[in-house]
Amino acid sequence: MATEEKTLVEILEENNLIDLAKYVNYVSASQAGAIATFSGTTRDTFEGKTVVELRYEAYVPMAIRQMKSICSSARSSWDIHSIAVAHRLGTVPVGEMSVFIAVSAVHRADALDACKYLIDELKASVPIWKKEVYSNGEVWKENSEFMDRKLELGKTNGSCCRRNVKVETHGTKSCCGAKVKVADGAAAEISTSDAGTEETI
Amino acid sequence: MATEEKTLVEILEENNLIDLAKYVNYVSASQAGAIATFSGTTRDTFEGKTVVELRYEAYVPMAIRQMKSICSSARSSWDIHSIAVAHRLGTVPVGEMSVFIAVSAVHRADALDACKYLIDELKASVPIWKKEVYSNGEVWKENSEFMDRKLELGKTNGSCCRRNVKVETHGTKSCCGAKVKVADGAAAEISTSDAGTEETI
Repeated sequence: MATEEKTLVEILEENNLIDLAKYVNYVSASQAGAIATFSGTTRDTFEGKTVVELRYEAYVPMAIRQMKSICSSARSSWDIHSIAVAHRLGTVPVGEMSVFIAVSAVHRADALDACKYLIDELKASVPIWKKEVYSNGEVWKENSEFMDRKLELGKTNGSCCRRNVKVETHGTKSCCGAKVKVADGAAAEISTSDAGTEETI
Repeated sequence: MATEEKTLVEILEENNLIDLAKYVNYVSASQAGAIATFSGTTRDTFEGKTVVELRYEAYVPMAIRQMKSICSSARSSWDIHSIAVAHRLGTVPVGEMSVFIAVSAVHRADALDACKYLIDELKASVPIWKKEVYSNGEVWKENSEFMDRKLELGKTNGSCCRRNVKVETHGTKSCCGAKVKVADGAAAEISTSDAGTEETI
């Protein structure tokens, strides 16, 4: 039943649900006695406003590169067996999962602490933007943690953080209907299948 | 989609697998934006020895009472929506899950920190014993964390910790074939169905 250490990073295109069992099975191993997971889901309210859905958009090659970097960093800090990270793009209705992280390790402290680190770092450093769609309008949100990190680094004009928060009248057009076109070095590896953008390292 | 806050504590009798999706669904709620989980699985080695399987035995009413107490304690420390805790008894082969915890909350820090607290406290204070079955023998293990807590409390003769570690020749007879008979106050609520012993509070 021996399995090697593995890392899976996936960005799922519009309308692809996160398959929790798939990722838990991916990190499961006979050598690992512990699996910690984190799921982020769309909740129905934000600061007193009724949320209808969230819509996520990303610069995919940079998001994947950053997610892989975070995974490597976690491995250097904890004794981890396998990691799976998945993030949906497009519309995520209330109650559905937008992000999922699973980490396996021999001992539970490594799995739990690495899982917390991975989601905290993902929120703070991965270029994924969120539109909150309320019953009476919608707002592109800068993730406040991402902004904090940006300010911390003194990069106020970084290319990955170029959006400003703006309020739009309510519309139903999806913000993420089109696939992200990929042009840089990291692009060559990235799948463009409907099932998702997957990186196994 | 509103759901009330819930707590589910289950002890599963011999040969009942832990249904991860069931517990994640149980804690899911439109109000909760975060779900943290922890799974403890049987790993294939312990201190250099090849593990074949683990066998768990518990004084069920006390174990359930203690698990419920830990859940209440977590609620007093973090802003939690729902909690599910499940522990198998009997034989758990390598690669299978013996314990699973799922916690939902509005914010991720509450879910993650409470999940870590719950598994740490479960290991330290819930009276569940473990027999490690190796390829060449078997050992009843006092959980070291449970022992530490017992010593900490100065209760060296507590009724829940009465087993001594002993090495036996290898045998295949299950240690947990019989149902635990229940006689105290907490017993009345406890189901004796094959599917498990369940407490929803």
